[in-house]
Parts: sequence; C-alpha cells; structure tokens
Amino acid sequence: MSQMRKDVFSGRWVIVEETTTVRPSDFHFKKFVRETTFCPFCETNEASTPPEVFAIRKPGSRPNGPGWSVRVVPNSNPRLRIEGELGRRGEGFHDLMNGVGAHEIVIETPRHDQNLHELEAGQIADVIRAFVARIVDLERDKRIRYVLAYKNQGEEAGAHTITHAISQLMALPVTPRTVKTKLMIAREYFAQKERCLYCDVLQQELTQGKRLVAENEHFAALAPFASRFPFELLLLPKTHNSAFSRITEVQIDALSRILRDVLRKLNQTLGEPPYNLSLQDRPFLRPRSGYWTTIEEDFHWHLEVLPQITRISGFEWASGFFYNPVPPEVAAKCL
Amino acid sequence: MSQMRKDVFSGRWVIVEETTTVRPSDFHFKKFVRETTFCPFCETNEASTPPEVFAIRKPGSRPNGPGWSVRVVPNSNPRLRIEGELGRRGEGFHDLMNGVGAHEIVIETPRHDQNLHELEAGQIADVIRAFVARIVDLERDKRIRYVLAYKNQGEEAGAHTITHAISQLMALPVTPRTVKTKLMIAREYFAQKERCLYCDVLQQELTQGKRLVAENEHFAALAPFASRFPFELLLLPKTHNSAFSRITEVQIDALSRILRDVLRKLNQTLGEPPYNLSLQDRPFLRPRSGYWTTIEEDFHWHLEVLPQITRISGFEWASGFFYNPVPPEVAAKCL
Repeated sequence: MSQMRKDVFSGRWVIVEETTTVRPSDFHFKKFVRETTFCPFCETNEASTPPEVFAIRKPGSRPNGPGWSVRVVPNSNPRLRIEGELGRRGEGFHDLMNGVGAHEIVIETPRHDQNLHELEAGQIADVIRAFVARIVDLERDKRIRYVLAYKNQGEEAGAHTITHAISQLMALPVTPRTVKTKLMIAREYFAQKERCLYCDVLQQELTQGKRLVAENEHFAALAPFASRFPFELLLLPKTHNSAFSRITEVQIDALSRILRDVLRKLNQTLGEPPYNLSLQDRPFLRPRSGYWTTIEEDFHWHLEVLPQITRISGFEWASGFFYNPVPPEVAAKCL
Repeated sequence: MSQMRKDVFSGRWVIVEETTTVRPSDFHFKKFVRETTFCPFCETNEASTPPEVFAIRKPGSRPNGPGWSVRVVPNSNPRLRIEGELGRRGEGFHDLMNGVGAHEIVIETPRHDQNLHELEAGQIADVIRAFVARIVDLERDKRIRYVLAYKNQGEEAGAHTITHAISQLMALPVTPRTVKTKLMIAREYFAQKERCLYCDVLQQELTQGKRLVAENEHFAALAPFASRFPFELLLLPKTHNSAFSRITEVQIDALSRILRDVLRKLNQTLGEPPYNLSLQDRPFLRPRSGYWTTIEEDFHWHLEVLPQITRISGFEWASGFFYNPVPPEVAAKCL
C-alpha cells in the first residue's frame, strides 16, 4: 500500500510507499568520478576564471592569486547577466524581459580532491560566510528581487562535467514561484494562528523524533513528512528568522557542523549519491518581490537537500505530484 | 544573452537562451534500446498481466487473449490501489490519506517492435479511444477527482526497463497542483475578458506562425513561448472544450494524425529522444476537485510533449524556474 501525504509548507501532494525496509542498493545512480583534467577552480589557476567578486583570504594574499579558502567568481557562461536594463515588455499575450541578474560560482575549497561533505566544519563555515556576503551585496541592486543559492552534486543532479566542489548563486529579477507559494501558505497560517508554521512543525518533529535526523543547539535536520525524494532533508534554524543573511557567527558554526554531519550520513548510507542542495530564503524587501509587511513573522528560512537517486517521469512533470518509494521515517532511521 | 519569459498559462518563468543556431547533436541522451527478453505486454502473453479493464478487439476475439489493437490493464505494481477508503486524516500539522486511486497501463500496440511514433494513425486513434473509455469509466467512481494520462518514452524520461510502447493512467483523489494553477489562471482571464485564454493564445500563434509546428483542421501543435524544455510541444484542439473525453470521432482522427506527425518530426530531428507526453484535462465535476461553475468556459484541454534531453538541476528544483537553451522559435524551425 501507499499513502498520500501533503506537504504543509507548499501544499504539494506526494505518494509515499509504505515499506519498512529499504536497501540503499535498490537505487542506481552514476558513481561520482572526479575529473582530473585542467580545472579553472583549483588554487593557482585563478587567472582562468573571471575576476573574483568575493574571497576569504589569508592576510597578505592578493585578489585573484592563491591563498584563499573560498572564492566567488562570476560564471563565465552565465544564464543571466548583470549589465543592461530589464526591459519588461509584452509580445501580444506573452510577457518577457531581458535576462538581467547575476550568475556566480562559489568555489567551496581551493583543493580539487574534496567534496563538500569531506570539508572540515571551519571550511564549510567559510562557504556559508561567502553566501551571506554575496546576498548582502546583491541586495543593494534594486533590480534584483531574489537570490537563489544552490548546489548540484554529481552528474545526475545537473553537475555535468564540473567535479571541483562548487555551489552556484543566481540573482533574479523575480521571486521564484516555489518560494512565492511557500510565502503565501506561511502568511495564511500566521494570520490564523499568530504563530510561524515552520516553528510549529519543527516543535512537533522535535517532540515526535521519528523523522529527526540530526540536531544541535541552533539547527535541526528532518526527513520531511511529505518528502518528494528518497532521503530528502530539511534543515531549519531553531530560532525564527525570515532572512538567511542575518545568520550570526554562532549559528554559522552550528550550521556548518550539522550540514557536514548530515551530508556525511547521506554519503555513508547511499554511497556518494548525486544531490541538490538549496537555500529557501525570503525575497528582498521590494514592493513587488512577494514581500509583504508581515513577511518577517510569516517566513522561516531553511535549506533543502534533495538526493537524485530516482527518476522523475511524466507523472511528476504533468502533475507537480511526486512518488517517493522511501517513507521519510525509514530514511530517518537509515541515516 | 538570454530572455526571461513567462508562461501565460501557468505563471512560470523560464530563462530562454537567445541563440539562432541549434545543433541537435549538442544534446546527449541514451539512445533507445529495445529490450528483447520476455515482455508481458506482447500479444499472446496476455496471461502475464492482470485481467484487462478495456480493449479494442477483433470481432470474436476473447478478453485476455490475442486479437486486440489496444489493451488496458491495471498496473501489477500500482502506486495507488482501487480498494479501500480514502481515510483522510491528520497527524498533528500533517495531512494524509490512503493511497486510493487507480494506476493502469495502456498497451498501445500488440507488437513489440514499434514505438508510438511508428504506429499508423489508425492505431494511434485506438490509443486515444482507450483513454477516452477509461476516463469515462473512472469518472463514475466518486472518490476520483482527476485522471492523469501520461507516457514515459525512454529511460531518461522514467521508462526504466519497459520498452514495449505503453502509456499510463493514474486516477487521483485530488486534482494535481499543476492543473489547479492553470485552472485558476484561466478563470481569472475569462473573468476579465469573457474569452478563453487558450483560444486567444492559439489565435495569436496561428497568426504569427513563428512557433507553429503543425496544424490540421481540428488541432494545432506549437512550440510554447515559454518552453521549459528544448523542443517542448503543446497540442491544442482548435474548438474550445474543457473535457478531453468529449472528443469526437472526427477530432480523434485529426489528433492521431497530428500527434503522429509531430512525434515523427521530433524523432527525425533529435534521433529518438526520451520524452514525456501528458494530457492536461479538466478535473471531474466534484465539489472540491478544483471544479467551479465556469470551468467549462475557462479551461481548454491540451497535450504537452516534453523532450528530456537536458538535465534538471538544483536551480529548477529550488525555484520552479526553468532554463532552456533552445528558443522555441528555433525549435519550431528545426521541426
């Protein structure tokens, strides 16, 4: 038998198989294989990327030279460009605008031989600091309404031929639909209850414990009740906050530890699976960004980890529904 | 440069690359390879499937024996089952119900050596008749709110190891979110204009012609303005109708011809690409199915063909946004 479960944050339905046993060997995906040809993201190859827009560097080291722990550069083949006007216009019934925004690469480590989960917590903390710095900077550009931070690990998660540990950042002139839907649901909930939906669900999950994967003083990692993907994870700050960029140094330390912890568990359990990681942040406070006066109370930023070990079919594309063969309670137990 | 385009039917944004040349060889996907081991869907192997729920048969042939052109059987490993109560319930903040519904396989041909695009138009017409018959039958079950008809062609479109030409049908106790969004947008449009959004856009596309891929007396096939995937196609009936099951025999004939035509073009241009095909129909007329009194006027059923020749990444999963390297105008020209 199966269950149909509704995701409380997005309204999305998922068919979850009711099974108590899962063999990680049931899932087939391409093993991660590190490319060993020339890599523009390695230390000493800095001249092969566009000039850096941010870096955490050893005192005395020079921009675009060696001596960094994290480095952010514009994508040399960007999907959106920072130059030019938005040029919003219509073509009969259709709406379009120029591809204005930013597309940046966050190089997570100067070393070619480590993936994100193999880094030390201190190094992961530097990656988090880089995201904070870039989001704060991009917020000044009034054309930008949202910054989407994400990571593609492994070919089946969209990483193609790049095997150096990187994340990406896309600054957008519109708020993504996925986020807008979450904002609207969170607003309705707060309007009814005078409480944050995420805080409430987190409290229930911490009490029940059966979908809890990891926890420290500032963060919790859950297998969400209506997980779309097997071994999906949701990381939430325990203290209510709508904006990721307001994260404190103490929280950065705690987040880097729990993130390393759950990514290691995922890699140990499944054997270096492909996955996507994304930040679900509130939009910038612009009149039409999906921002409203209650957004600070309504929304609670979070991270999503989506292992890509099953194939999406016409069913998912046609419906926005998902089918998940692994109940999150079983995933939590495995991890 | 790129453009950001908004899909008028769903509100979804897509980043479309501005390029005038596309080489089909730029896309990498697994070539279709036909399995030649025992196949339960072949003629004379009828005993290997659950008993058929529908078939188009030669006069005198017996159910679950040879002599059919199209055969519909329950999935032997269904994601949803027809038995039992829905049992809608809560678990604290979470909502769930039993996996009640139906999951059926439409065997498109008794022959193992042909894909859908290789069938004669008359055979494709029988496949369409099978879908109509099953939808009409499932509509009688009051627990069902929606029937999703879809096809996974090729491994990268989710077809796994089945290479016999089949489609699937999932009868659901809820209306998929994707469809609900389209219904709401179509309703708002009609409320403003007193005209159907799909009829209006179709008229503009037929006049402009630059995204038109094929056309006959009853149907048009377009490369949609905000295509999510390279070579995506939208097939629309020219006469307004919200419900696929009211298709006439003359329209079935026209649809089978245009569908065969565009699938052959797609296969010739890209070389047997993996793709998903789905029917976007209105929900059944139930109080809570997303049905409202104006739905017959508002909505216009259609088919979507989504070639799966690019990889979805964390960007798409995190945002609901898409990136398409092939402008639909270029795709239409190639086809």
